Parts: sequence; structure tokens; C-alpha cells
Amino acid sequence: MPALKNRQILLRRRPSGLVQPADTELVTTRAPELAEGEALLRTTYVGLDAAARTWLDDQPSYLPPVQLGEVIRAAGIGEVVESRCPAFAAGDVVTTLTGFQDYAIIRDDVFSTPIPGESDQLAIMSVYGPTGATAYFGMTDIGRPKEGETVVVSAAAGATGSVAGQIAKIAGARVVGIAGGPDKCRAVVDDFGFDACIDYKHDDIPAALRRHCPKGVDVYFDNVGGPILNAVLGRLAAKARVVLCGVISSYLTGEHPGPANYVNLLAKTASMQGFNALDMWGRFDEAFADLRRWEAEGKLVHRETVFDGLESCVDALNGLFTGANIGKMLVKVSEPTSA
Amino acid sequence: MPALKNRQILLRRRPSGLVQPADTELVTTRAPELAEGEALLRTTYVGLDAAARTWLDDQPSYLPPVQLGEVIRAAGIGEVVESRCPAFAAGDVVTTLTGFQDYAIIRDDVFSTPIPGESDQLAIMSVYGPTGATAYFGMTDIGRPKEGETVVVSAAAGATGSVAGQIAKIAGARVVGIAGGPDKCRAVVDDFGFDACIDYKHDDIPAALRRHCPKGVDVYFDNVGGPILNAVLGRLAAKARVVLCGVISSYLTGEHPGPANYVNLLAKTASMQGFNALDMWGRFDEAFADLRRWEAEGKLVHRETVFDGLESCVDALNGLFTGANIGKMLVKVSEPTSA
Repeated sequence: MPALKNRQILLRRRPSGLVQPADTELVTTRAPELAEGEALLRTTYVGLDAAARTWLDDQPSYLPPVQLGEVIRAAGIGEVVESRCPAFAAGDVVTTLTGFQDYAIIRDDVFSTPIPGESDQLAIMSVYGPTGATAYFGMTDIGRPKEGETVVVSAAAGATGSVAGQIAKIAGARVVGIAGGPDKCRAVVDDFGFDACIDYKHDDIPAALRRHCPKGVDVYFDNVGGPILNAVLGRLAAKARVVLCGVISSYLTGEHPGPANYVNLLAKTASMQGFNALDMWGRFDEAFADLRRWEAEGKLVHRETVFDGLESCVDALNGLFTGANIGKMLVKVSEPTSA
Repeated sequence: MPALKNRQILLRRRPSGLVQPADTELVTTRAPELAEGEALLRTTYVGLDAAARTWLDDQPSYLPPVQLGEVIRAAGIGEVVESRCPAFAAGDVVTTLTGFQDYAIIRDDVFSTPIPGESDQLAIMSVYGPTGATAYFGMTDIGRPKEGETVVVSAAAGATGSVAGQIAKIAGARVVGIAGGPDKCRAVVDDFGFDACIDYKHDDIPAALRRHCPKGVDVYFDNVGGPILNAVLGRLAAKARVVLCGVISSYLTGEHPGPANYVNLLAKTASMQGFNALDMWGRFDEAFADLRRWEAEGKLVHRETVFDGLESCVDALNGLFTGANIGKMLVKVSEPTSA
């Protein structure tokens, strides 16, 4: 097969805040020859999440920072076009760290998971992958909402929050979302079925929490940190559980104002637990089985915001922080053949 | 019996910071006539803890604030001198909320617990009471240190911290204390058997934590909040447990600077849990059985700092915040006859 043209978006300069045009460069190369043990994947969708932005900072996390000159790292899905690896055959659909590029080399490692059978690739990126597993394990293992309890979810219109809140509804809880702007709040209530949604851009958050959570907050699924976390800590019920899933308010600035109301954890005998769904890797199938059943029963919906074309990857990444998405933020890089 | 002279220390003005002379008044009254169901207790020891100071602020907690003109509330122990209550007989030793006074009226309620048998009243106030139970349940139920793990305890020379750290040693952990000044640090290591002690008044705390906890902190038993909590959060190991037991750094000011390093709970899949040993009331005997066994085996020691005379109650309360005590802070109000 003649070498395929491969567009790649490289990191040229570490961004400060939103990614600027001069921070990246779109280059066109040729997809490399495969070595033994490698396969070539044509990217269909790239998924954006806050972790992708953190990888551009010169800060170690569970993966090393993207180096200058490297392809910007991101989770994605694609189809195998050629394989010299027994784990993959041409036509297989695989989730992996595609990065911002048309073609990625994959190997038989923990990052690359073949998806068997007919696959709705959008749904896999949105709910039947790490994003859905994060919502599932964060809510069921750590939040553990009970019938009649009050659950608050921030970034409620986002990919993780929208699913986390629906899981709490299925458990019989009253669920209050927090999202930015009337369109998102409408989606949170009308599409995702939350009982109420607080608009953090327009509402007085402590007052709205008092109104919507008269008996206090039993479970808080926190995707944002910052003043919203602090406000909810100030409204905890006895024995509340705070699930720390993300700190999107501070990913851009690197600043994390401490939540002064953490003392309420003491007064309310409450807990705050950080987690990373990747620790639950071995139990993902359990999560997906429940999520698929709930979707089939009409109890769970998922939404996606899809930007078009590899060139829009940076805009999509920035859009996570400017509020451009309802549901999972994705970029369609090429047409899937499988679904 | 002729009515007994009863000195009482009343709250006259809400203190700001340390309790000032004009905030209180020592009055001499007569012990009241007993109604049916009441008994009269002669106070032997009053115990001081940070909660007693919080009760002087006009802030609701698990007990209402002390009102102006009322006797200052505090836990204590004493001996029954007269009883019109079937639960108590003259001579019984009882722990209760004696308050700052020579004689207290007690009833058969949750606050008053008769202590059977020969009793070391100092030890009961110090370790075989709520203070010891706090150390026990905070460390064993929430901290759960394992062999070889690293445990950090703040206010390590205090009544709770000194016992909590020894329990972690018994579990096989490496235990690092944090205390104020060389005398306390010496006591933490030499008397209480911690592996090391950081002097927060003289050491660079983050640097000392790096030196003494090279593999990070698996369990942090926090009695102080503030910058020390923040520093330890910055040094957590993966899956660390932070036990929130107190916020002594902020009880005087009412200000609780938020710990910006709480984000490390997310990065380290760690938890922070507030608790109140009074929730474990029904399991106190379990705690005391273990603590008594450890003391008998020579694995657990307790210390007391005893001020003399009812008049010194306010100094003793203030002394908690100025670092005057090693071990439990007590005031001897009258001579015990039982031990």
C-alpha cells in the first residue's frame, strides 16, 4: 500500500490558558511503515476531555507531558487499515490514544482496546468508554446515592456529569445539576431528566443550593472545583459523600483556590474522595453492561457535540473550557465505515 | 445536708480569640436542692479540649452555644455526693459535662456515664473516655494504617494525637509527628515512641515532610487544619487516607483558609473523611478494651498536664491554643477519693 498522507497537529509552544494558534502546527507527513507488532489505525473520532489539556502543561500526571514537536495526545477511536500485530485485523474498530492525527500507530498494549461486533463509534466515545466508566464508578462506588437522597452534579451538561446524574436518578435520588447558561440547564432537565439545574453564570449558587437542596446535599459529584465546590461543601448533609472527579475551573490557570468550607466535612462527618476510573479498568465491562441495559430500558440517554474535521481539534479542546459542548465533545476526523 | 458552696465560672462576654479576664466571672453560689431524678456531683477534674472553646462562640454545633450568664461548659469527672436518681449512688464516679464549677447536677442521660470499679480518674479523662475513643476510631476505622505505611499525626503531643500515633505504631506503621517546639517534639519521640517529629515552629514543613516521608504519606491524622493540612495534602501517597479530627488552627479566628492542595486527593485517588467519635458511642467499650490491653502490654502510654484549682480553668483552656500541654489538659478541681 502506498504510504498514506497523515495530517498531524503538533505542540509547538506550551499554551497558557486556552490553546492559541501559535501553540500548534498542522503538518502533513506520510504514515510510517509498520514494524512487526504494529498496526495502522485511521482515526474516525477524537474525543476531548480536560485531561488532554493538562497533558500540554509541563507537569507530570499519570501520563508524561506532551513534548514540544510531538503530536497532541488525545483519546480517540478508529479503524485498522493494516496490521502487523496479531491482536488487530484490518477493519477492526479500536479505541486508543489516537492523538490529533489522521493515522496512528497502535500496539497490543493497555492503551488500545479492540471493540468487538457492530459498534456505534459515537456511543463508544461518549458513554461506553472511559467517560461513561468514570460517571458509573464515581457515582456507584463512591457517591452511593440512596433512594430519596439529594445529589448535586456539576458540569451537568457535560459527558461525565450528564451520565453521572442519570445514574443517581436511576438509584432513586433527587438530582440537581449545575451548568452554565439557560441552554445547558434546559438540556440537563429536559434531555437528561435531572430534577432541577442551577445556572452558575446567572444564579446565586449558595441561594440556589438552599432552595433546591432544602435537606442538604448527600452526594456531590464534582467536575469543576473552585467556588462551586466550596459552595456545595457549605451545604452538605450529615454523612455526605463528595466525589472528586475533576477540577476544570483550574486546569487553565493552574490555580486551585482551596475550598475553605472543607471544615464542613468535619462538622458533617462527611467524606471527599478523589478517583480515577482507570483504576477500575478490570471492571469496565460491569459498568458497560449496566449502562447498556439502562439505555435499552430508556432510562439513560447520551448526547454528543461533534466538530467536523481534524483542523477543528484545537477549537474543540478549547470549547471544553468555554462551554461549547452538551454531552461528549468529539471531532469527526474521517467517516466510520462500521456504523 | 447543708447547701454546699459552689464556685462557678460564668460566660459574661463572647471571647474573640483567647478568653480574656473580662469574658468570664467567678461567682460563688450554693449548690441547688436536688429534684427527683437528679444527683449532685463534686467535680474532681475538668478536661479541656478545643470543642469547649467553640461552644463559647455564637455558632451552632452538635451542642448549642453557651449563653451569656451560663456556666462555661466542659467535660469532666467527679464523685456523687447525694442522689435522688436511681442511676447514681453516693460515691459513684461519673463522667459528664461538669462545666467550670465545683458541683454539677447530673441526670440519667447520655451525657453522664458512671464508671464502675476502682478508677484512675486521670486516665479516664485522658484515654479511657471520648479523647481516647477519638484517637482509636479515627485511626483504626478511617486511617486504617497497614504495616510499613507512613502515618503523619499533627498536634502529636496532644491528648488525641499522642494516642493516635501510638495506635499507628502498634499497627506496624512508620509514624511521624508534627508538634510545636523542641520539648514537645522530644516527648513525641521519647515518650510516645513516634519515629520522628517535625517542629512546625522551626522546621520548613514541606521540606521536613519530604525528608521524613520519602514514599509519601499514606495516612494523615489532622488535628489542626490550616497550612499544615495543606502541606501534608501536597505530600500524599497514592490511595492516602486523611482523617479530619480537628481544626485547632482556626478555632480562635473562625477563619479556615482552604487547603489548595486538596486537588491532590484527585491526583492520588485519596480520601479525606471528617468524623466525630460521639457517633461511635455504642462502640466505646471496644475501643477501651483494646486501649487497656495495649497499656497493660506496655505499648501505650498516656500523659496529662494538670493545672490546679477551679480558678485555672480559663488559663488551661487558653493553654490548649498556646501550646501549654503535653497529653491531656486537665484542671484538678478537688481531690478524688477513689484514686
